[in-house]
Amino acid sequence: MESISVGLLGLGTVGSGVVTILHNHQDKLMHQVGCPIKVKRVLVQDLHKDRNVHVDPTLLTTDVNEVINDPEIDVVIEVMGGVEETRQHVLSSLRNKKHVVTANKDLMALYGPELLGVASENGCDLFYEASVAGGIPILRGLVDGLASDRITKLMGIVNGTTNFILTKMSKNGSPYEDVLKEAQELGYAESDPTADVEGLDAARKMAILATLGFSMNIDLQDVRVQGISAVTDDDIDYSKRLGYTLKLIGMAHREGEKVEVSVEPTLLPDTHPLATVNNEYNAVYVYGEAVGETMFYGPGAGSLPTATAIVSDLVGVMKNLRLGVNGRSAVSPQYDKKLKSDSEMFSKYFLRIHVEDQVGAFAKITAIFSERGVSFEKILQLPLNDKEVAEIVLVTHKTSRKDYEEILQQLRDLHIVKEIKSSYRVEGDGLQ
Amino acid sequence: MESISVGLLGLGTVGSGVVTILHNHQDKLMHQVGCPIKVKRVLVQDLHKDRNVHVDPTLLTTDVNEVINDPEIDVVIEVMGGVEETRQHVLSSLRNKKHVVTANKDLMALYGPELLGVASENGCDLFYEASVAGGIPILRGLVDGLASDRITKLMGIVNGTTNFILTKMSKNGSPYEDVLKEAQELGYAESDPTADVEGLDAARKMAILATLGFSMNIDLQDVRVQGISAVTDDDIDYSKRLGYTLKLIGMAHREGEKVEVSVEPTLLPDTHPLATVNNEYNAVYVYGEAVGETMFYGPGAGSLPTATAIVSDLVGVMKNLRLGVNGRSAVSPQYDKKLKSDSEMFSKYFLRIHVEDQVGAFAKITAIFSERGVSFEKILQLPLNDKEVAEIVLVTHKTSRKDYEEILQQLRDLHIVKEIKSSYRVEGDGLQ
Repeated sequence: MESISVGLLGLGTVGSGVVTILHNHQDKLMHQVGCPIKVKRVLVQDLHKDRNVHVDPTLLTTDVNEVINDPEIDVVIEVMGGVEETRQHVLSSLRNKKHVVTANKDLMALYGPELLGVASENGCDLFYEASVAGGIPILRGLVDGLASDRITKLMGIVNGTTNFILTKMSKNGSPYEDVLKEAQELGYAESDPTADVEGLDAARKMAILATLGFSMNIDLQDVRVQGISAVTDDDIDYSKRLGYTLKLIGMAHREGEKVEVSVEPTLLPDTHPLATVNNEYNAVYVYGEAVGETMFYGPGAGSLPTATAIVSDLVGVMKNLRLGVNGRSAVSPQYDKKLKSDSEMFSKYFLRIHVEDQVGAFAKITAIFSERGVSFEKILQLPLNDKEVAEIVLVTHKTSRKDYEEILQQLRDLHIVKEIKSSYRVEGDGLQ
Repeated sequence: MESISVGLLGLGTVGSGVVTILHNHQDKLMHQVGCPIKVKRVLVQDLHKDRNVHVDPTLLTTDVNEVINDPEIDVVIEVMGGVEETRQHVLSSLRNKKHVVTANKDLMALYGPELLGVASENGCDLFYEASVAGGIPILRGLVDGLASDRITKLMGIVNGTTNFILTKMSKNGSPYEDVLKEAQELGYAESDPTADVEGLDAARKMAILATLGFSMNIDLQDVRVQGISAVTDDDIDYSKRLGYTLKLIGMAHREGEKVEVSVEPTLLPDTHPLATVNNEYNAVYVYGEAVGETMFYGPGAGSLPTATAIVSDLVGVMKNLRLGVNGRSAVSPQYDKKLKSDSEMFSKYFLRIHVEDQVGAFAKITAIFSERGVSFEKILQLPLNDKEVAEIVLVTHKTSRKDYEEILQQLRDLHIVKEIKSSYRVEGDGLQ
């Protein structure tokens, strides 16, 4: 091959990073793949916008067909975001026998199986390392590095915005709203932060991770999601006192043939490998039957880190091109999806409630738990400034989610319970 | 292919793990590579030894030729250890067109380039993920996951024995000798612990990591090595007081075209991602120009974790077999080796010395540093029980190793200096 021609869909933060890496590391890339990489065409929205990366203006186009229908383009790099329209562009590219590298978690979480199928039919690679945890090569880690193992648990801090917010809340004791505002000013949170703070972004990544880790098609709607917008500084303070760190954790757990996947604020023991992952950093903890505990840590977003993953995927495409084996590396899921019911999910829970401060109140509450055989690992009971209300903070032993939800309902119905302030999953120690 | 036949050289701890994984995960492996994997022949030293894994006794042999010359064997898995004899077996296997998977860091650190060359000439794969950091897929992470980046720094806790010892010393305040004995009783240290505690094992792994990370043939003798056998509980205590954690760190640093590689006890700031890697766990910290900070964490040794890496490599060989592209994935080093001189290596240093407790002693010492323009970041001066001797503990600002060595020599020559108790490198904050 004399050279490889690449078409870029999008020249925003990540697209600019791709152009930068292709330029700055051209010697290394050339050495690895044996020929130069040429950016041949770049789809943009505005031809005349000022950009912080130099691209020959004659390469820019506002017509997507000039990229996806250009017979000279070998690989399309999709960094434009969005779902429905982008899906059509990716499908057209694949049908035009172009390999595709994408950073689009939304697209892969929703249409991954379809797109991978079309890629395979057309003898094309479709790589998406950058879609999960930015610069961390976690997808390759799962698919290649741990190829021989049976993964039973994945836990991820896979959203940098929420990790930044929770870290700052924990370090400074500041309330959620203040820290969110700071995160927005620093560019760690969008002006509309909903997808991040409500856990949807993390849920998309967990659907992708669980699909690969468990070799089973996990859809976005299979992921139970709870965000961090209701987390208070009190919750964080109590977590600390009890020896925990509160994080937004994506969790995928397999027991036997059944799995559960969730994203929710979770209390981790301070000794858990994920507990010290701070600020905007991401990490994915993987438990395999044979390997035991592993963790992959790094930047989960940002222009250059995400572009590193994209261009590394591009190197993968080009190595396959040289060997003539594109489109043959994807392995279809081994198992049919089997989801656990609520009565098959077991966990400890943290619960903080306000009750009337009267004789016998605590006994009534504990009775509700003990009727279902649920006992406590830790309890704090504290009077509040308001003399008539006491705060009870407790951590249960393991119980099924079904029993726990029923306990919560009974507590809500109990007249002495003024308010259920918060309730979170509690992770055991690191092992499994 | 109807099936793949594997020959095992060795059936010790790691070999047994390989047999176990091939058995327990056969469904997953079959799904990924499309045919069963058969262990056809196993080289052992003693045919009649009791083993904790079941292997058909008719497969065992004490004659290596029955493995490496068997025309039906496609892949040889080398888990016998040793160097010179093993090298011959690996060479013969490759020349017989057998792919080789090895866990042998000694072999790869000493003869990696030769063996990889012979593998390539014979169209064979030679994979060695298990040779560094056991179950952590760090070599793939460097070669594939970060393919597009320019790695400038690698730091590894790559020896579980020494990390276990330093962790226990730090947690319990116990002296080195006691903890070493405990490690030996628990099986974390060999009865002859020299290769571990003197840093040689870590040095071999760093030679392999630096070779891949910098695309430059780094030999074992290029690695500066200092072990932990002289580390005292006082050193660890002072490190803590100054906000550091003392670890045995393998470090490979590239600046411009020149590199340095070392293994030595190093003070890490408590906030460094490696500082919380405890007990027998391993981790490799990678700094890439584009990706920034990443870290790979997991078990660095053990039967099943190491076997996970080996069988994952085997899956790689088999995928290549199916595609007909074996022996074509290795990339030869891009750069000629260029090592830094001592005057080009810069670091902070921790120094603990005993001096005569007399007026002007401290001034004489600081004068030696200031003559070379070296100033201090932190200083502790404490009287010892012995009234005539004071202990000075200091951390310098960055200086060249050359200047620092000369300062040490001048201090040794100074009559008021009773003893240089210890001297260690001090790492900066996480970034670079």
